[in-house]
Amino acid sequence: MSDGVSMTLEEVYATAFEVLCVQGCSEPQAEAIAETITAAERDRCASHGLFRIPFYVRAIRGGIVRPRAVPTFTDLAPGVLKIDGGLGFAPLALKLGAEPIAERARSQGIAALALTNVCHIAALWPEVERLAEWGLVAFAFTGASSFVAPAGGTRPLYGTNPMAFGWPRAGHPPMVFDQASSASARGEIQLHLRDGKPIPEGWAIGPDGTPTTDAAMALEGAQLPFGGHKGAAIALMVELLAGALIGSVFSFEAQALDTNKSGVPPGGEFMIVIDPSRCIADEDAGNQLQHAEALFERILAQEGTRLPSQRRFAVRAETLQNGISIPASLAGEIDALRTVS
Amino acid sequence: MSDGVSMTLEEVYATAFEVLCVQGCSEPQAEAIAETITAAERDRCASHGLFRIPFYVRAIRGGIVRPRAVPTFTDLAPGVLKIDGGLGFAPLALKLGAEPIAERARSQGIAALALTNVCHIAALWPEVERLAEWGLVAFAFTGASSFVAPAGGTRPLYGTNPMAFGWPRAGHPPMVFDQASSASARGEIQLHLRDGKPIPEGWAIGPDGTPTTDAAMALEGAQLPFGGHKGAAIALMVELLAGALIGSVFSFEAQALDTNKSGVPPGGEFMIVIDPSRCIADEDAGNQLQHAEALFERILAQEGTRLPSQRRFAVRAETLQNGISIPASLAGEIDALRTVS
Repeated sequence: MSDGVSMTLEEVYATAFEVLCVQGCSEPQAEAIAETITAAERDRCASHGLFRIPFYVRAIRGGIVRPRAVPTFTDLAPGVLKIDGGLGFAPLALKLGAEPIAERARSQGIAALALTNVCHIAALWPEVERLAEWGLVAFAFTGASSFVAPAGGTRPLYGTNPMAFGWPRAGHPPMVFDQASSASARGEIQLHLRDGKPIPEGWAIGPDGTPTTDAAMALEGAQLPFGGHKGAAIALMVELLAGALIGSVFSFEAQALDTNKSGVPPGGEFMIVIDPSRCIADEDAGNQLQHAEALFERILAQEGTRLPSQRRFAVRAETLQNGISIPASLAGEIDALRTVS
Repeated sequence: MSDGVSMTLEEVYATAFEVLCVQGCSEPQAEAIAETITAAERDRCASHGLFRIPFYVRAIRGGIVRPRAVPTFTDLAPGVLKIDGGLGFAPLALKLGAEPIAERARSQGIAALALTNVCHIAALWPEVERLAEWGLVAFAFTGASSFVAPAGGTRPLYGTNPMAFGWPRAGHPPMVFDQASSASARGEIQLHLRDGKPIPEGWAIGPDGTPTTDAAMALEGAQLPFGGHKGAAIALMVELLAGALIGSVFSFEAQALDTNKSGVPPGGEFMIVIDPSRCIADEDAGNQLQHAEALFERILAQEGTRLPSQRRFAVRAETLQNGISIPASLAGEIDALRTVS
């Protein structure tokens, strides 16, 4: 990229950490966010990488986020752990909660994490990947602002409501997917807008309720669920799990709480974590991951297939070696945030 | 329907129960299956109603099913209950497991049910609806024979792999969805074949790997996941949960076990059950279901929308009053099964 700025992953982390601290985050909050941003750049998930820094800063300046919040833990049941994020950003609460919820899954067989009062604009795959690397099966669900029309409707109601799932693999990085229940991630539409590109058909309808390929119209109108009413059902499920179930807000309520329109409303995340070794007789516990490999082999034996996380792990191997590149305009925008004016 | 045979729901149950007993099921197995079939007819889910009787009978006659099996229970962990179905049909194991898994969810907050060694050709919504009626949130996942191509592939690998989800409602029947991760249920293609109708585009590819609207070609080729690679990711997740995780078989392995091609291979089902009142501070436990109603109201306020289970509950009210009607050809086929020749 001729107008790109090359960076090592260490520089990505250092930049994110510095800017976030300068802009008011506590060191633990800044560390956890910088780790998440670095993981995204490492895996070339640009929409959750340094591109997000200005969003975090806007949230700190204008939103209701508390950038020095310390998450607090409550035992709700033998299998349910609650973390109140204290209106901080999500990554710190998820980082601190990972060991306790893993421990709970190991002792109970299955456990749930109810994370409330966090401002969440990161991807979900880092938390399920972390748990899957520890040998656990993990799900994560979160809402967002109202962006997506319900099945049959024309106005925004659901968030893009991603659902992530991770499966541990023996001798390979985990199998992880993290997919919006909308046809596209909102960040993807934002990237199309930034780059002046039309969006594919089926992603959105405009404010008038008719299909559009104009990124700006899409952001003003409503995104569409993936796969019609079935994707919409997933979106509804995510609303209920990350909203009402854990005493958090629905996407449409989160939006209303974001009084300064920072784009980073408070909300919740729900996780389910399972220890595979507790889901089978002890003598068979070693076989499950090996058995799963037989399925992965069958998938990959068909031409044109790949596993959900395969592309990310391939680019990871490359960026760990060669670093990454970001648009010069973004680098300039971030540089301007290294000081508080 | 001029060539239809009218039946009350009591007659549906009695017919199913009688035929299944005559064909070799134990009374408990026959009762549980007849309840499931009656629930399907009651809700006009024809593809899981009396239409399935010949499948059950074929399985008894030619498959590896044990129609007098007694399910056995094992405690795997505080939050994980295993039921070995003993190669019986799934409905009895699910019926007997409902109270114990509900109890586990209430005491632990979240619990999992690992159901193995069952022959499963019923819908999943009855088991999640039952738990949701008891105030619990429930998920169910199961595989099937290899019918669906993986993302990017052209040959069958996954089952139609339904995933069901139930949410309890205050003052209303539960919100329940039960959706194949294929673009259509296999039963729907079978019904199109029976009725001589073409299937919609996007449901399947033929044995040559190209798109088809011919129901027979579709059944010989591969079904497609709903919503492209995202639906395929759900299908993969279901394979892992209902297969490797609980020490059961993948869809492609189940198919291979069905040596007599009865169409009813043995397999597993995985359920997750959550007690909402344990996912929130005690003083707020009453508010969750009320809160969810605010979301449902917003959905229904948009013209053209409905909740996933709404149509089923509407027809239920009608069939409970007026009974149902089945094609005369099916009635004849079932009548012929009332005796063993």
